[in-house]
Amino acid sequence: MLSRLQDALSEHDVDTIQITYSETEHGLYMLRSMPSVDVAIVQCHFEPVAIELLSLLRRKAKSVLFDGATVSGLDVDAVASNWRVSLDMCMRHLIERGHRNIGMIGSTGRSRPIEAIRLHYESLRAWSPGGAVLHDPVWLDSLPNEDNLGEIGEALDVARRPDGSFPWSALVIWGALDGKLLQGVFSERDIAVPGDLSVVLLGHPGVATESNNFFTVIGSSAAETISALCELTLRRMADERAEFVTRYLEPVIAEGQSEVDTI
Amino acid sequence: MLSRLQDALSEHDVDTIQITYSETEHGLYMLRSMPSVDVAIVQCHFEPVAIELLSLLRRKAKSVLFDGATVSGLDVDAVASNWRVSLDMCMRHLIERGHRNIGMIGSTGRSRPIEAIRLHYESLRAWSPGGAVLHDPVWLDSLPNEDNLGEIGEALDVARRPDGSFPWSALVIWGALDGKLLQGVFSERDIAVPGDLSVVLLGHPGVATESNNFFTVIGSSAAETISALCELTLRRMADERAEFVTRYLEPVIAEGQSEVDTI
Repeated sequence: MLSRLQDALSEHDVDTIQITYSETEHGLYMLRSMPSVDVAIVQCHFEPVAIELLSLLRRKAKSVLFDGATVSGLDVDAVASNWRVSLDMCMRHLIERGHRNIGMIGSTGRSRPIEAIRLHYESLRAWSPGGAVLHDPVWLDSLPNEDNLGEIGEALDVARRPDGSFPWSALVIWGALDGKLLQGVFSERDIAVPGDLSVVLLGHPGVATESNNFFTVIGSSAAETISALCELTLRRMADERAEFVTRYLEPVIAEGQSEVDTI
Repeated sequence: MLSRLQDALSEHDVDTIQITYSETEHGLYMLRSMPSVDVAIVQCHFEPVAIELLSLLRRKAKSVLFDGATVSGLDVDAVASNWRVSLDMCMRHLIERGHRNIGMIGSTGRSRPIEAIRLHYESLRAWSPGGAVLHDPVWLDSLPNEDNLGEIGEALDVARRPDGSFPWSALVIWGALDGKLLQGVFSERDIAVPGDLSVVLLGHPGVATESNNFFTVIGSSAAETISALCELTLRRMADERAEFVTRYLEPVIAEGQSEVDTI
């Protein structure tokens, strides 16, 4: 996705350079020696952002733009997935297809977007939307960039009844980044998707590795994310003093073959 | 509330000093000349926090603790009102009392807690919780520390029908900080609360100026906020390397005389 963003910015004669770091300390070390830039676009999910890093970016760049609502409340711009609306859209979609027993797998991670999923699921659940029962959610210890597929498999084993059925007719999964490996998790267990269980992913429609051309995916599209990041970069370059904004993207649905109507 | 927090910390032999600033630049100027401290507790609602200020606080204090989820995703601790659960509790309370037509007044402000109210109201609304109609909300241009009471009055004038009635049987207001002045807004217009309209505030139960011993208030209590701030301060002083947390407070309801059952 980053290369697509670089292409989009190039079309507007904006030169970009990409730096990837694995350790904050090392990232800081590299950044200190870098010359100044107009806009720093930051992508760092799941972990708290060090104020020291932010402060250095602020000194090196006239403006800081986040991909994701990882941080908020600061003098930065951000483009963010709207997980609240994505979850609403997902539940509405499943309820319209007749599902009344819905399961949920997410993460215990403390970053704001992950927390938003948990809190919104708990809120929705208490309202029994459309008369549906939203079952006890499973919040995995792992993050999507860790081995969460193993944990997803374990959650399925725990939930499965002795007769092989599940308490849910549909399962929503957030944080599965590799659709092919996820299909493996189900097939290893002889769980037919969607025959035994409908599955919808909260993720990024248009990212082929997530859906693997099989799973239905709901979330903000990669194309829209790129276009919004590009737009906010150009806006900031045109006006350094523009109001700071977090732009929430409207979710879309990319329907796959992983879910069916139920009666 | 700050003095109550200072008292609570004194009981644990923690010395505190309070600095209040109106302009970020001036705050920065004052802070630069200050000696270092163990924990900086920051209270700044409604406006984006300057990274430069945060960075200075980080250098002056071993740890930074926010009153409010004003910023998130950083290496800071925070104690936050859970407005999502507060709004859920408020709607549940009104629905239990028979209300099925509910109005809402909040703010267009861009800070995270204000945004949370708007987004959650819109989400709830689309689900018609408990069969209730959540009417078009009014998002005021002003912030609670500005003249928002004038705007609340205008919103009431606009919503009122020619026969003097309202489209809602109950109205939820977020951001009214002075219960006495708010009562004036209704009485000036000959609107009997709760006779003509039940009113519930989302705010801070236990803060006498908000309820004026009249309004029902739902939100996190001042006492709980103080106790959580105190606890997180001591936790951080005991362990500089503890995981960074945002502690959401469970809302409570302080029932007043501003709402009635409806049929």
